[in-house]
Amino acid sequence: MSHDVETELTAAVSAQFARTPDPRLRKILLALTSHLHAFARETALTFKEWRQGVEFLTRVGHMSRDGRQEFILLSDVLGLSMLVDAIEHRTQESATESTVLGPFFVDDALTRPNGADIGAGHPGDLLLVNAVVAGADGHPLADADVVVWQSDEDGRYDIQYPERDGYFLRGRFRADAQGHVQFWTIVPPAYPIPDDGPVGDLLNASDRHPWRPAHVHFHISAAGHRTLVTHLFVAGGAYLDSDVVFGVKQSLVVDLAQHAPGTAPDGRACPAGWKTLDHRFQLSAL
Amino acid sequence: MSHDVETELTAAVSAQFARTPDPRLRKILLALTSHLHAFARETALTFKEWRQGVEFLTRVGHMSRDGRQEFILLSDVLGLSMLVDAIEHRTQESATESTVLGPFFVDDALTRPNGADIGAGHPGDLLLVNAVVAGADGHPLADADVVVWQSDEDGRYDIQYPERDGYFLRGRFRADAQGHVQFWTIVPPAYPIPDDGPVGDLLNASDRHPWRPAHVHFHISAAGHRTLVTHLFVAGGAYLDSDVVFGVKQSLVVDLAQHAPGTAPDGRACPAGWKTLDHRFQLSAL
Repeated sequence: MSHDVETELTAAVSAQFARTPDPRLRKILLALTSHLHAFARETALTFKEWRQGVEFLTRVGHMSRDGRQEFILLSDVLGLSMLVDAIEHRTQESATESTVLGPFFVDDALTRPNGADIGAGHPGDLLLVNAVVAGADGHPLADADVVVWQSDEDGRYDIQYPERDGYFLRGRFRADAQGHVQFWTIVPPAYPIPDDGPVGDLLNASDRHPWRPAHVHFHISAAGHRTLVTHLFVAGGAYLDSDVVFGVKQSLVVDLAQHAPGTAPDGRACPAGWKTLDHRFQLSAL
Repeated sequence: MSHDVETELTAAVSAQFARTPDPRLRKILLALTSHLHAFARETALTFKEWRQGVEFLTRVGHMSRDGRQEFILLSDVLGLSMLVDAIEHRTQESATESTVLGPFFVDDALTRPNGADIGAGHPGDLLLVNAVVAGADGHPLADADVVVWQSDEDGRYDIQYPERDGYFLRGRFRADAQGHVQFWTIVPPAYPIPDDGPVGDLLNASDRHPWRPAHVHFHISAAGHRTLVTHLFVAGGAYLDSDVVFGVKQSLVVDLAQHAPGTAPDGRACPAGWKTLDHRFQLSAL
């Protein structure tokens, strides 16, 4: 059988998808066909490998349930999530850089007042976050919606605990008139992405570690501005050079300031001291 | 953000996978990264579309359970299954052409004696199949293992019925000294692939019908020869020009002979007549 048969087959599939009524879907399906077929031809993919691929994807699907989205993890470790993020920001004006959403965002985090402690009851070094949300022109964005989430001291997110009671280390804040948001939390640790499933097997087979450097997630939206999805990474931590999901950008790596034991500015007693993270986010106009 | 960021990202992912110890897996992962990223860049895939893709694949995974392999269906309608089949046979010597395995093969079909009726108790026009299995040089392949399966009159396979008792319209035969296999069945109908899931939604959105032309599946193996996975399609039936899985090859379309009411050669009374399908399969040497 000649390679002509293969190119004829690709043409036959494309001819079917070329009739897709919606032009955007048509473009995507034609490109998908073209690249998927090119991948199979270039690797001379065998039937056995195809079966392994089907079984792998089936495992990824079965693993994707509440609190675990294995397809997002797969996209993340393949660099696709960061690529889509880069493509989305091709035309971005000067603004805070974005990074991956990750699989642990939830849209219905409880709204907390400024100054609240989202880490209450969780062990870890106290961290006071002071964030200002501004437009690219520097004007503070009053009433900006700021959703934050991070892992606990064991490197796990609330929704990874099936028996949890409500959310923790997660919250939604509203910026005040100066665009200011403040909350207490704990210093996040580096952590491995869930690696007991097929994505973990893939990392293992390719001799890659599953670790992400320590970070806090931010999802910030404000009227008239592009929503910003990003992290702040803790400077000096491990894995900043080898984030398994390729999410680190230098502008997002921030220093924490250390404070001696005493009383924080808001009156909180910190007998073991505390750290602060001050950051100014800039959103580009729509 | 410039396109340089995107190519740097692809390079960073490739650099990680370049360390994969197994050379074949390394090649596959590097090609996957390259083509997946090229697909996203070329289409300027948006975050919203990426999420839709994640949700689509998750649905495909959840749909893939006993008796239903939605990822195989997806591969089939994208032409990937037939492409892998074509690639596997790039170096094929003269032999019967192959086609897709499909999602309804099972490896443990009951062995039946030559002449058995795999359609017993199922309505449909009686069909007597006479097959000969030979090598590419024409020598009969005694003891060849021949697994056959097909849909019932409603276009469904046994394993699509959750409440079924054992297999039906499916069997395993052993060729006799002349390479001959004979069995009774019913004339298969054209049928739609299962289209109540995400693959059906994809077909619908791309204005494609879900139908396959009528066929009987064969999986034939013999010592010293390449296993043959193929169908025989019923000549004159619908959808031969637009098989949803791109599986039709002209050499696999066969005429059925019609016989008047009476007694078949093996003594079976056929008051409504019967049809015969005679075919010679040729397997290439290993």
